[in-house]
Amino acid sequence: MSKKPLILVTNDDGVTAKGINCLVEVAKQYGDVIVVAPDKPQSAMGHAITINSILHVNEISVNDNVTTLSTTGTPVDCVKLAVNEILKRKPDLVLSGINHGSNASINVIYSGTMSAAVEACLEGIPAIGFSLLDFDHDADFTASKHYANLIIPHVLENGIPTGVCLNVNIPKLDLKDIKGIKICRQANANWEEKFDKRTNPHGKTYYWLTGDFVNYEAGEDSDLYALDHGYVSIVPTQFDMTAHKSIATLENIFKDVRKR
Amino acid sequence: MSKKPLILVTNDDGVTAKGINCLVEVAKQYGDVIVVAPDKPQSAMGHAITINSILHVNEISVNDNVTTLSTTGTPVDCVKLAVNEILKRKPDLVLSGINHGSNASINVIYSGTMSAAVEACLEGIPAIGFSLLDFDHDADFTASKHYANLIIPHVLENGIPTGVCLNVNIPKLDLKDIKGIKICRQANANWEEKFDKRTNPHGKTYYWLTGDFVNYEAGEDSDLYALDHGYVSIVPTQFDMTAHKSIATLENIFKDVRKR
Repeated sequence: MSKKPLILVTNDDGVTAKGINCLVEVAKQYGDVIVVAPDKPQSAMGHAITINSILHVNEISVNDNVTTLSTTGTPVDCVKLAVNEILKRKPDLVLSGINHGSNASINVIYSGTMSAAVEACLEGIPAIGFSLLDFDHDADFTASKHYANLIIPHVLENGIPTGVCLNVNIPKLDLKDIKGIKICRQANANWEEKFDKRTNPHGKTYYWLTGDFVNYEAGEDSDLYALDHGYVSIVPTQFDMTAHKSIATLENIFKDVRKR
Repeated sequence: MSKKPLILVTNDDGVTAKGINCLVEVAKQYGDVIVVAPDKPQSAMGHAITINSILHVNEISVNDNVTTLSTTGTPVDCVKLAVNEILKRKPDLVLSGINHGSNASINVIYSGTMSAAVEACLEGIPAIGFSLLDFDHDADFTASKHYANLIIPHVLENGIPTGVCLNVNIPKLDLKDIKGIKICRQANANWEEKFDKRTNPHGKTYYWLTGDFVNYEAGEDSDLYALDHGYVSIVPTQFDMTAHKSIATLENIFKDVRKR
């Protein structure tokens, strides 16, 4: 009997979010699924980990026939806990999401969903982060599930290049209106922040972080272009943050001070 | 009268850490300094931002003649608050650190110190993160200050390539034993986690995240090699996480499913 793939599922919206439960439904068709996910929303946690406080893990009942553990940690903590402490063997695939909201372009560096995928990738495990461009807690994941159903078996069969995970974003469209999948690069876009400054009932100032997302380019090979034109975007994502092309420039800039 | 550079200083160890105050001392020589930093330790916060709760900002008195604001946010929040809300003009330079502990190699993605620098870089501001390879709260920053004194004026004079910030790590050595500066790439290393599993006084299991840092390579152009051999390492760091070299491979893997 061939062993079924072991699939770890996590997210950053918390273990009870609709998106993760849709992903579990899809994943169950392709292997033995275990869920290890945050017990509360952990959006925008980036690659945060918990080193100055303790972590708890609790088994909860939300998915039929799927072991589901909620943790007090971040998405990255969940992957570390699952891979290094909870699971008896290394998972064959880590799935993160389906996130309620976009993780395209620069959102990848703020995203708990994608940080969990990157962490799995660091541990040498193929990983995919799925995100739907709809923040609604009751968003329609029909098209997302359809594409997860295309992508997951393909990755289990073909693998992913070593050191790479996939950042999959699905446009907020009816399935019939989505044109297909495009492999893309991360677009050059950013949040232009606006702080909403308020006064509390005791007279003290406080701030809410808000902002507008601004796309600085129109590159047809970028994820934002694909999503804007009705495609699911897949960006191969890695964790080497070195600006390799700038090494020579900096060697030149620092040539006078490199020796004391 | 020529305007002095405006230098924003932040960190992830909290506004009262020894490291940030050493950095302020150095920075004061090169411009008008303002400190906007977390009111408590925020190590390992990665690129986390605060979107589901509010932010407070308080002026405190820790540095003579330097406006110092402590915030309830993460290091990235501090940069966003400073640049978009607090400062009257865009800073000419953002400095983060001096971190108590290494941010070389893969630590860059967990690091609040470096995430603050990356955030500044995203906002189009030259930025440098400084880290000393010593976790001690009373670490000796003499050598770090010496190198900050070499690097900061050089960056103010020559700039940094657009879209790049600097990840500077200083070995835990006496100044006389440091051989100079090397421009490097991020080494391929990782944490091998071990969870310390304990039982609390009420019988419930909890975990502490611990681990060993393991270097998987010996590349002479890597930051870990430089630091191990007595050099200060500077890695040019950027925020495009696309694995550009894998795009063609993935296009091939997904060629059958790219159209529904």
